[in-house]
Amino acid sequence: MAAHDASIMPTPLLKDELDIVIPTIRNLDFLEMWRPFLQPYHLIIVQDGDPTKTIGVPDGFDYELYNRNDINRILGPKASCISFKDSACRCFGYMVSKKKYIFTIDDDCFVASDPSGKKINALEQHIKNLLCPSTPLFFNTLYDPFREGADFVRGYPFSLREGVPTAVSHGLWLNIPDYDAPTQLVKPLERNTRYVDAVLTIPKGTLFPMCGMNLAFDRDLIGPAMYFGLMGDGQPIGRYDDMWAGWCTKVICDHLGLGVKTGLPYIYHSKASNPFVNLRKEYKGIFWQEEIIPFFQNSVIPKECTTVQKCYLELAKQVKEKLSKVDPYFDKLADAMVTWIEAWDELNPTKASLSNGKA
Amino acid sequence: MAAHDASIMPTPLLKDELDIVIPTIRNLDFLEMWRPFLQPYHLIIVQDGDPTKTIGVPDGFDYELYNRNDINRILGPKASCISFKDSACRCFGYMVSKKKYIFTIDDDCFVASDPSGKKINALEQHIKNLLCPSTPLFFNTLYDPFREGADFVRGYPFSLREGVPTAVSHGLWLNIPDYDAPTQLVKPLERNTRYVDAVLTIPKGTLFPMCGMNLAFDRDLIGPAMYFGLMGDGQPIGRYDDMWAGWCTKVICDHLGLGVKTGLPYIYHSKASNPFVNLRKEYKGIFWQEEIIPFFQNSVIPKECTTVQKCYLELAKQVKEKLSKVDPYFDKLADAMVTWIEAWDELNPTKASLSNGKA
Repeated sequence: MAAHDASIMPTPLLKDELDIVIPTIRNLDFLEMWRPFLQPYHLIIVQDGDPTKTIGVPDGFDYELYNRNDINRILGPKASCISFKDSACRCFGYMVSKKKYIFTIDDDCFVASDPSGKKINALEQHIKNLLCPSTPLFFNTLYDPFREGADFVRGYPFSLREGVPTAVSHGLWLNIPDYDAPTQLVKPLERNTRYVDAVLTIPKGTLFPMCGMNLAFDRDLIGPAMYFGLMGDGQPIGRYDDMWAGWCTKVICDHLGLGVKTGLPYIYHSKASNPFVNLRKEYKGIFWQEEIIPFFQNSVIPKECTTVQKCYLELAKQVKEKLSKVDPYFDKLADAMVTWIEAWDELNPTKASLSNGKA
Repeated sequence: MAAHDASIMPTPLLKDELDIVIPTIRNLDFLEMWRPFLQPYHLIIVQDGDPTKTIGVPDGFDYELYNRNDINRILGPKASCISFKDSACRCFGYMVSKKKYIFTIDDDCFVASDPSGKKINALEQHIKNLLCPSTPLFFNTLYDPFREGADFVRGYPFSLREGVPTAVSHGLWLNIPDYDAPTQLVKPLERNTRYVDAVLTIPKGTLFPMCGMNLAFDRDLIGPAMYFGLMGDGQPIGRYDDMWAGWCTKVICDHLGLGVKTGLPYIYHSKASNPFVNLRKEYKGIFWQEEIIPFFQNSVIPKECTTVQKCYLELAKQVKEKLSKVDPYFDKLADAMVTWIEAWDELNPTKASLSNGKA
């Protein structure tokens, strides 16, 4: 049971292996609160909207900042795949990072407290999640078997106890829950006060709504699938950027034998976005997701696709074939998915050629 | 969002619609502790082992008690499908009950306390779980969307928000976790102290290790699948009774569009069983489950099977075809599965003829 030993070891900081990606349109004052936990890390700030505006970053943080002009300069015509006036632009940060791990967080997310009142080091928990295996092939009723004080229960097949590498750690939110516009409108006062002390693997074959507010992943394992799509300025839809990335990522993780965990850590989500604005952004997605989700549930990736890039290009092909009839938007999105991979491979040449060489 | 209203209504007692099934070889002193919660209900006690022994039941409980002689008298030759000298005999209680719901609990399970110190009414939580729908087709990251203070998160398809009827509520255990013998031997001192305040649906297509210690189900929806197999006296295996029922039940629930929930409520499991004895009972199962689980994962039930009985007989046929080569035991077990359904239909004639009529 060597794998368990990890749970009682101090969690490594991974200071030189992790970048924090923050999409923003405003000064990053919220970082003051995160200073004790995040100051050791390098930040990649993706400035959304007007590039002439100056974004303030609190002193003492190590960062690089990209605005729209930078994105256009670096990607050239391929910059078309990066959304504008939408936090979906954050995925540019995943592409320019050179680190193994990414933690991405919204600028209205504060440090939460656990039931004992202790401030939660969200990043530390994400690192724990990413460093322990996932168990997507069989459900463990005591949740993550690799946590301290837990294990596999009676009846869990021994051949599956090694688990699979964890590619994604999806954290949750206290206070303002991540609701869609209709639910926000119906339940304006609902707050999430339930601290659920669990991490669990989302089983193979099951899709989930991945929220980009508090998310970490292993860039080497799954990075090229973390494309946040075409949202915002000039697009017919918003607020489905992280969902799109989540559906693609989960299908590819299932195909490649990688794991997705959800649950801890919590952050404190301070402010509900405007439900009327959200409804305008979402309403096409509310229809479309009824067709998109069955599409992803039924999508089969051929065996020959052995890298994330190949899987993603295959998905792009299937999107074009099967979702373009829903709306011409998907034809454009499928093209952007291809452009995204081309841009990724350009900016990450070694890994791209390595992974091409492997196939 | 009418379904949510259920979560803020007082939970109905279902006094006349629920039986409590307890398998035991000893005096039921543990019921004293449960009196405030369980006394309103009818108990079905299935006495295991020597039928001449007298089982003491605390005053004031309404019960019927069946020993081996009763089982033999009631079922005649079909009594062969009910295990002897093993708590698997409990499923006889499911068969003789005439109620819609069953709660089954082991006699070493005490009342647990939640983190605030309040005694947990386990049965009330099971009733809540069974009366709210399940959501097996898509994962909700805030767990059970029908609980007070929770809902479906952004990106959850609206067409799936009605959910499906819940057939099974699987509760957990504080203190002694439900570990197999090897894990008990390796971690003799591990105790489960983590109270996870969550209920969740086990997704469609995912199997789980169902423990019979603290379990409730809707007998009308899934009763005939809750066969605890051939264990104990004269059999090569033990401690796989609930697992067997869980695998069959989950496959049939998935086929019929029914839900399985796990999580709350907790009971306090007082005493670890002897790991050496357990190892003797389990060791064949530890090998066999490596073949049984892929068998169930790949099992397909034909569309024509529209009742639990028909699904179960189909599974019995597949067990005979595919698992008999693992060990002759499965040939015997497949026959016992058929006998179980015959006995069930004999004791539950209306429902059996109704369901036959429906097909």
